Amino acid sequence: MAIVLGPNRYGKAETRVVRVTRDGGVHTIKDLNVSVSLSGDMDEVHLSGDNANVLTTDAQKNTVFAFARKYGIASAEEFALTLARHFVDSRPTIHHARVEVQEYAWDRIPVLEGGVPRAEQHSFVRSGGEVRTALVHSDGTGGAESVVSGLTDLVVLNSTGSEFHGYVKDEYTTLEETNDRVLATAVTARWRHHGTDAGDAGGWDASYAGARQALLDAFAGTYSLSLQQTLYAMGRRVLTERPETCEVRLAMPNKHHFVVDLAPFGLDNDNEVFFAADRPYGLIEGSVLTGDAPDAPDAWS
Amino acid sequence: MAIVLGPNRYGKAETRVVRVTRDGGVHTIKDLNVSVSLSGDMDEVHLSGDNANVLTTDAQKNTVFAFARKYGIASAEEFALTLARHFVDSRPTIHHARVEVQEYAWDRIPVLEGGVPRAEQHSFVRSGGEVRTALVHSDGTGGAESVVSGLTDLVVLNSTGSEFHGYVKDEYTTLEETNDRVLATAVTARWRHHGTDAGDAGGWDASYAGARQALLDAFAGTYSLSLQQTLYAMGRRVLTERPETCEVRLAMPNKHHFVVDLAPFGLDNDNEVFFAADRPYGLIEGSVLTGDAPDAPDAWS
Amino acid sequence: MAIVLGPNRYGKAETRVVRVTRDGGVHTIKDLNVSVSLSGDMDEVHLSGDNANVLTTDAQKNTVFAFARKYGIASAEEFALTLARHFVDSRPTIHHARVEVQEYAWDRIPVLEGGVPRAEQHSFVRSGGEVRTALVHSDGTGGAESVVSGLTDLVVLNSTGSEFHGYVKDEYTTLEETNDRVLATAVTARWRHHGTDAGDAGGWDASYAGARQALLDAFAGTYSLSLQQTLYAMGRRVLTERPETCEVRLAMPNKHHFVVDLAPFGLDNDNEVFFAADRPYGLIEGSVLTGDAPDAPDAWS
Amino acid sequence: MAIVLGPNRYGKAETRVVRVTRDGGVHTIKDLNVSVSLSGDMDEVHLSGDNANVLTTDAQKNTVFAFARKYGIASAEEFALTLARHFVDSRPTIHHARVEVQEYAWDRIPVLEGGVPRAEQHSFVRSGGEVRTALVHSDGTGGAESVVSGLTDLVVLNSTGSEFHGYVKDEYTTLEETNDRVLATAVTARWRHHGTDAGDAGGWDASYAGARQALLDAFAGTYSLSLQQTLYAMGRRVLTERPETCEVRLAMPNKHHFVVDLAPFGLDNDNEVFFAADRPYGLIEGSVLTGDAPDAPDAWS
Repeated sequence: MAIVLGPNRYGKAETRVVRVTRDGGVHTIKDLNVSVSLSGDMDEVHLSGDNANVLTTDAQKNTVFAFARKYGIASAEEFALTLARHFVDSRPTIHHARVEVQEYAWDRIPVLEGGVPRAEQHSFVRSGGEVRTALVHSDGTGGAESVVSGLTDLVVLNSTGSEFHGYVKDEYTTLEETNDRVLATAVTARWRHHGTDAGDAGGWDASYAGARQALLDAFAGTYSLSLQQTLYAMGRRVLTERPETCEVRLAMPNKHHFVVDLAPFGLDNDNEVFFAADRPYGLIEGSVLTGDAPDAPDAWS
Repeated sequence: MAIVLGPNRYGKAETRVVRVTRDGGVHTIKDLNVSVSLSGDMDEVHLSGDNANVLTTDAQKNTVFAFARKYGIASAEEFALTLARHFVDSRPTIHHARVEVQEYAWDRIPVLEGGVPRAEQHSFVRSGGEVRTALVHSDGTGGAESVVSGLTDLVVLNSTGSEFHGYVKDEYTTLEETNDRVLATAVTARWRHHGTDAGDAGGWDASYAGARQALLDAFAGTYSLSLQQTLYAMGRRVLTERPETCEVRLAMPNKHHFVVDLAPFGLDNDNEVFFAADRPYGLIEGSVLTGDAPDAPDAWS
Repeated sequence: MAIVLGPNRYGKAETRVVRVTRDGGVHTIKDLNVSVSLSGDMDEVHLSGDNANVLTTDAQKNTVFAFARKYGIASAEEFALTLARHFVDSRPTIHHARVEVQEYAWDRIPVLEGGVPRAEQHSFVRSGGEVRTALVHSDGTGGAESVVSGLTDLVVLNSTGSEFHGYVKDEYTTLEETNDRVLATAVTARWRHHGTDAGDAGGWDASYAGARQALLDAFAGTYSLSLQQTLYAMGRRVLTERPETCEVRLAMPNKHHFVVDLAPFGLDNDNEVFFAADRPYGLIEGSVLTGDAPDAPDAWS
Repeated sequence: MAIVLGPNRYGKAETRVVRVTRDGGVHTIKDLNVSVSLSGDMDEVHLSGDNANVLTTDAQKNTVFAFARKYGIASAEEFALTLARHFVDSRPTIHHARVEVQEYAWDRIPVLEGGVPRAEQHSFVRSGGEVRTALVHSDGTGGAESVVSGLTDLVVLNSTGSEFHGYVKDEYTTLEETNDRVLATAVTARWRHHGTDAGDAGGWDASYAGARQALLDAFAGTYSLSLQQTLYAMGRRVLTERPETCEVRLAMPNKHHFVVDLAPFGLDNDNEVFFAADRPYGLIEGSVLTGDAPDAPDAWS
């Protein structure tokens, strides 16, 4: 029986780089977790252990740090594109680069002097909440490329304005219908851009802020009959508000909040006290596209 | 050889209760993780399995939910005190209750109608960042009690304004001295209150907000020669700003940010590019007290 | 601009079911984490919130528990197949089911009486180590189906027998070549079966045990010039030893163990003392196939 | 108001050291996570940032690696004692050292040649399951010292042989009594030794193995009327079997396994199918001592 090598890739994962930029005494910071994956002529390293085509993952890590110094980090997307193109351009045996970035946000801690902001400002507090993500694929300068932006762990909750009824009742169905429930989820959303230049959209940071706001607005503004309906509304809103995007993929766990039965204790519970459950949970996954979205299965891998 | 039962306690840990309160169409939510531990005449349940003195952990959980309905959740501290006193008062064989609370903060997602906030407001986003904590001990109404408030995972960073030198150089010391480094930590802070009533302090929520701000102000405002110095300044600031407190305990990992050596790549690095390391890390733990702080080792257990 | 719904699925994730089976006083247990995802005619629930085609995730959870009672849990794969077929067969609007299982292993704690095993044996200790996985796709009885078995977190280490040299040296390469290093990884491996019946292979459990052993044997028995070479050898070994399999996918982080430089302390370090690093880490991903492996991209989704 | 510095300590946490020892071609490995905490004359570093008395945490880390080379790692306890004594002995301003160790166990992967074990054996697989722990306090050679051994995450389950009834029924009690339930827990156990020399006990490794076995035997062998009873039996067994120990502290979450009500589906469920819940959980904490156990509150801090 013949045995063959299939698709493969390798790289340095989770390089944690922090970049400080100074404007006089006012500092800004970028805090990224960068993962690189390269593929190309890698048969020999698998078959015989010949590393002649292997750019070490250690060198990839060094490149991340060096590029943070040379080029700065304008945005997660820009930095990922710069890295991805470099790796492919640098070696004929590297055909494709995938760069994934997680970005942690920080807020400034204002330091006052006599009640006004001091000239020196270099203190920060992690804002917590969601993590911003970027996923870039590149075949090198001039080749096929894709940019997917996104976020994970945007935890949201509507304490009313959500119903659930009219579903299938099979022999294993015991759930009661409801006209008023808590709807809560931890949103993982990713959106694919038409191109690799966010110039018309006002830059990657503005594009991100707009997409995030669209997700929040749609979650809060949708009277929900199902979490799927809310998911679709959120994806649709991003596409509508951000014409630079053409596809949104969402994964939204239904973080169940069960109304606690307090009748045994002589108490009513008109949707006031909930038990927030961990597992199991519903998991809703879906995608929303513009009619002209080009096929791009590899953009998401 | 005689074998004896030593100190013991038991209870229901991590009851996740969410309380919704409505003011017309405007909702507010409290999101808590409540852990109860009881102790008292519990020899027999250990020695023979006789449960006659055991209030089940299931009933403790039920009580958490029922009390959220009956009394609401004014604050983590108030809710913990109410629960703790109830458990001890309710049974002669329960002598002591410990109630620990973690509180997760939520921000409102504003929903606009015609550009102004809609009358209905019931959408929220988890604010992330630090978790608020409260730890209460009670021997029951009229008995000894203590309240410790706090927070975990307040992640802060100064990108300059920190030095480290003048330390011991023993045979295992290779660290270079520095006049300019990044100082970053994830603060766990707890502060003990003089009493169990935050009335003079403007209530538990105001007390918490003030202590949190004091920690941030001291971290950002201290020119640091060591993380210990910063820790002490933070504890001192809480005690100074919040006269309702008498002891602060802090645990602050030194989240090392190493300047990356870019010289092999022909690049300088004047504190611009850092590697954020995971392990190992320095860990600084210390306490700061007012001169009149009564001894209270059990308040922290 | 037209906006359209793309691929979607939904279901109950992470139902934790434990099944006890008794043979007289001798018990055995199966401990699973089951995640179901269904897809089909689900446009309306997304577009309008009409749940008429929705089998609730709550009913899915109930089905997991009911089937554990009715059919038992012969193996992770068998149980997943039974569930998947049921969901698709039960409703014309459900076209496809994906069932993913994680299985936690337990060892028996032997209880002796007079030095011999007691007739009653019902005590267990979690064996830790790797988690067994199964991923099943089904279009229903008689339709297209696939079975992928696997494991995660099989942590292995060779303390010698590994070299790394002959790689590309670009301007960002500073890594020193080595003829002797520690090679350590946490294996995630999944292998696709030719069919959905493990009968010829001696059953799913025997197939799993054989594949796991093949992975260990190849890791330990391969003199390694690169982690890619080891990965390929491991995949190849599974395919060779287990003719019921046709494709293996592996993800193997290079858990770096750095030789600590002890020269500043007057000590040599001939590969005796290592620092086990967390991040960043190399990540090697690859697949190995038999020549006759049918295309099955959806089997892995 | 006077403000004073209270108890404090500092050190390097979580140094991950792996030590390889060779006996010809047969290797053995020790895999530790070492955390050091020092205390002493540390007022000035807190009050003014004067580091003159500070042995850097970086030097502590270096010492861990250097000592692994110089002295080897005979056992977690021995290594911790050697480190702790060194730190206190080395500087008059360091009065006390606390060293905590977590040890991860590895099993050998046997490599055969012609059916018999090869002379070279250097392949390992992490055994998973519990983590071994050691906690040492020392005031330096000749001063007060303590050794606490232990383990975390020993997950055990009895599928029968456990009852729970006869407890208090207050107004918040709804739990049904049972004569047959699953009892499962994740044991955290620590045991204090009479002295700091395990010679009479056959060495630290034999002492650990014996204590671990005693815990398993008591868990499996105790017909349980409450988890507290089981906890006490486990502590008692360790003290009885291991005369080198004088105190055992246990923390045991009650990992609830709820019998699923299958009646709505026309199925009985005679303790065959369980839902393994996450939160909330009961948490039982207790200590068991020999009659002659000296007081040693600081041994556990």
